[in-house]
Amino acid sequence: MQYDKYVLNRLAVLRAPTGGVRMASRSLFDKVVVGSIAGLLLVFAVFALVYAPRGTVRAQNVREFFMTAQPATIELSPGVMWNAWTYNGSVPGPILRVRVGDIVKIHFTNGLGVRHSIHVHGLRYTIENDGSQAYPASMPGPGQSYTYTYEATRPGLFYYHCHSSDGGRPISYHIQKGLYGAIIVYPADQWPPKTEYEFVQFFGEAQLDPGFAYHINGAQAHEHDLLTLVESQGYQGAFDALKAAGVPTVPVGTELTFYLVGIGDQYHSWHMHGGSPVFVNGAPVEGDVIPLGPGSAAIARVRVTNPGIWLIHCHVVVHADAGMVTIILAE
Amino acid sequence: MQYDKYVLNRLAVLRAPTGGVRMASRSLFDKVVVGSIAGLLLVFAVFALVYAPRGTVRAQNVREFFMTAQPATIELSPGVMWNAWTYNGSVPGPILRVRVGDIVKIHFTNGLGVRHSIHVHGLRYTIENDGSQAYPASMPGPGQSYTYTYEATRPGLFYYHCHSSDGGRPISYHIQKGLYGAIIVYPADQWPPKTEYEFVQFFGEAQLDPGFAYHINGAQAHEHDLLTLVESQGYQGAFDALKAAGVPTVPVGTELTFYLVGIGDQYHSWHMHGGSPVFVNGAPVEGDVIPLGPGSAAIARVRVTNPGIWLIHCHVVVHADAGMVTIILAE
Amino acid sequence: MQYDKYVLNRLAVLRAPTGGVRMASRSLFDKVVVGSIAGLLLVFAVFALVYAPRGTVRAQNVREFFMTAQPATIELSPGVMWNAWTYNGSVPGPILRVRVGDIVKIHFTNGLGVRHSIHVHGLRYTIENDGSQAYPASMPGPGQSYTYTYEATRPGLFYYHCHSSDGGRPISYHIQKGLYGAIIVYPADQWPPKTEYEFVQFFGEAQLDPGFAYHINGAQAHEHDLLTLVESQGYQGAFDALKAAGVPTVPVGTELTFYLVGIGDQYHSWHMHGGSPVFVNGAPVEGDVIPLGPGSAAIARVRVTNPGIWLIHCHVVVHADAGMVTIILAE
Repeated sequence: MQYDKYVLNRLAVLRAPTGGVRMASRSLFDKVVVGSIAGLLLVFAVFALVYAPRGTVRAQNVREFFMTAQPATIELSPGVMWNAWTYNGSVPGPILRVRVGDIVKIHFTNGLGVRHSIHVHGLRYTIENDGSQAYPASMPGPGQSYTYTYEATRPGLFYYHCHSSDGGRPISYHIQKGLYGAIIVYPADQWPPKTEYEFVQFFGEAQLDPGFAYHINGAQAHEHDLLTLVESQGYQGAFDALKAAGVPTVPVGTELTFYLVGIGDQYHSWHMHGGSPVFVNGAPVEGDVIPLGPGSAAIARVRVTNPGIWLIHCHVVVHADAGMVTIILAE
Repeated sequence: MQYDKYVLNRLAVLRAPTGGVRMASRSLFDKVVVGSIAGLLLVFAVFALVYAPRGTVRAQNVREFFMTAQPATIELSPGVMWNAWTYNGSVPGPILRVRVGDIVKIHFTNGLGVRHSIHVHGLRYTIENDGSQAYPASMPGPGQSYTYTYEATRPGLFYYHCHSSDGGRPISYHIQKGLYGAIIVYPADQWPPKTEYEFVQFFGEAQLDPGFAYHINGAQAHEHDLLTLVESQGYQGAFDALKAAGVPTVPVGTELTFYLVGIGDQYHSWHMHGGSPVFVNGAPVEGDVIPLGPGSAAIARVRVTNPGIWLIHCHVVVHADAGMVTIILAE
Repeated sequence: MQYDKYVLNRLAVLRAPTGGVRMASRSLFDKVVVGSIAGLLLVFAVFALVYAPRGTVRAQNVREFFMTAQPATIELSPGVMWNAWTYNGSVPGPILRVRVGDIVKIHFTNGLGVRHSIHVHGLRYTIENDGSQAYPASMPGPGQSYTYTYEATRPGLFYYHCHSSDGGRPISYHIQKGLYGAIIVYPADQWPPKTEYEFVQFFGEAQLDPGFAYHINGAQAHEHDLLTLVESQGYQGAFDALKAAGVPTVPVGTELTFYLVGIGDQYHSWHMHGGSPVFVNGAPVEGDVIPLGPGSAAIARVRVTNPGIWLIHCHVVVHADAGMVTIILAE
């Protein structure tokens, strides 16, 4: 039936930006976190190596993640294929959730054809863990591995990305091919975090060789397609179809947390339909649109106050027109 | 006399961005606000329809606005004509001033050739009032009408715009053709608002088919024209001519409030000459330039501390060079 | 020896953005500040002229600066020459350090071929000191001089720039040719300021006639050159060579203050490697990247927590790839 095929095509697109990636990331998260490796010898060994000068000895958890740079073919929208470079197969890569005070270790393997690396924001580290041109050994070649060690010292939303310019490609190219992901550092008293209503969204430009595509989390959606869906199925029919296809569904009145990163080289901004107040980093925002300049991050807390099919999109409207759109359902 | 003609041409340009549009908007505002329609039956009918689930019943005013999408030809600067799409004949459309706690109703009529809509930021509403592709009935076709109902729940500067992508034109096109305007929600204890020294300024790109023009409130001015005017008339002569032509004139020392919106798809920023401190959303701003990213809004409070012909312009300087300039007089 | 030549070429580049310009600016600063010219007659003359209406008489220092618009040829990176317009021979021009309450006087001489001016942000002034088209006499022609008088009324980071559009060149051109510099207004109780660990960084686009080059403080550096340096000399060898060449070196744990200005017409952002928390205008920043929109300014306070060769670059990554990079050493 034509409707089914149409909806499924659409849903594949609509699903990915929030539900799909979030769930994928969470399962990765469950897999890669080896929990609290509390062996005192290891803790003290890392401690002595990295933090000896600071003096005070206190118990620290070590959280370990295993990440591999690898290729993946991602369908940004029906028929628009993206030969991406990824960490662990998805764009963005796995969400690294840690707690203030943690030692964070990333065991990185380069499964691609040129040098790559992991460079983090917001964590504390020594130069050996910079993942940049300032310490070349921290950018392993094809088939090589490297372990990075950091300390989480303050709460917030940060991210990691490749810092290599190998293969005759500038650093911007390495990033826009897909090598980035989020780091969320939770306050010490908010652990384990409640992640059910957390949404991580990267706004960026996918490097298509040549050209690029605006996307959120490796997916595009188009508002006129939503129009067609609702007009063909009726509002409730569309809602039900979207929900059945896995579009994230949240209860009215629940506080949602959006972790937002502008990972591209262009200016983006975040807008959510639904009429509810938006708080960003604890303060209200005039006009309820959140700026996401290149490299910027923001944490938005939102309550959806009415049921609906609610759009989320870049308010650089030409970017939304070009696919920088996603959806959330509230009931 | 050549001088008169020159000044009048210039003044037509200089006047529009602040004085002209502000006054036009205020008179529209006076016309469209039907005051507090306190008929208890209507209040309770709306109340029951939209807010029944919330329980507590309290008195709410209903403020009604009548808006029509209609064409207008706007002279951005002498000889630069813009075939705009407008709400009620001006760009930006009427300023909607409401109070926290109000029910807001917009009776919208589409007087243009394709579907259009009103989508608001910052107010609370149900999906039937979204004015987007998620609820197609809220985007009426040519000759049709639709009534939107919202609730104002928090103070601030918001705005409304068309969300339609009808006619083979993306949403960005509908907006950049001129379909937007401001919503100011005043705190409950600041009503009626004192609007004498309030200035609403939209920074955007006018869609010219093809190409676009940087403008503030549907008008352009050029700094080299001001130079010519002052050099030909003398400083006091230029001041007097500008004042006589209706350029907004404010008393030194009075607090001015600027309601600023970046409505375009490019980054803009706001700078005012005159040396006075600038407070934005209650806090000082480093460097005294206010960022206006796409979709962003800001409220700036300024005291002009000396008399003068004071420039206001985008500090993306190429935009100022291209006409994103206006003027205020202080005495 | 090839290595020496290579390092020296590199170091010429790496040095300029922070150490070179900072030191140059400081020596200029020492030269141009004539201290507190406390002659009561002068103070009262200025006072009577500019501030008579305000009534209260209190003691104010007058700080005087002498600035000349003059050409300079700046090597942005090896072989990339920039025929710049400068204040006093450098881009940015001298740093003007003043204290809240000061009267600030700039004795400006135009040593270039068309009209130029000085227009300040953040200070208080009368229209005669606007340096813009609103007061043409404040934009002197070639060989002419003009004295500007301002009052510093609030602390913060501001800047000055040319506001002329003479010579058939728009204002943006005058600025992007190099005519700008910083004004730092210190709180009254922080004087004299401790400037040893202060860094002023302007992010902009150098007008090359035709085309432009991304730069920080009139210099470019490239991350792949750093890679080559470290790989050829070893990490410690590179560190020592950079230090010997004058790259700024700071002690681990010391609070550094970065005064940042986005002076270009494009969006930039500031990122520093090293893993330390970043505070901007007193508050932490999500994601640790600082937005620098056109005309924006920010004050960042940073502690480098580990020794290293630490990169500072624009996080609009294509800009970093194009040379918007500098370095700081910590030990």
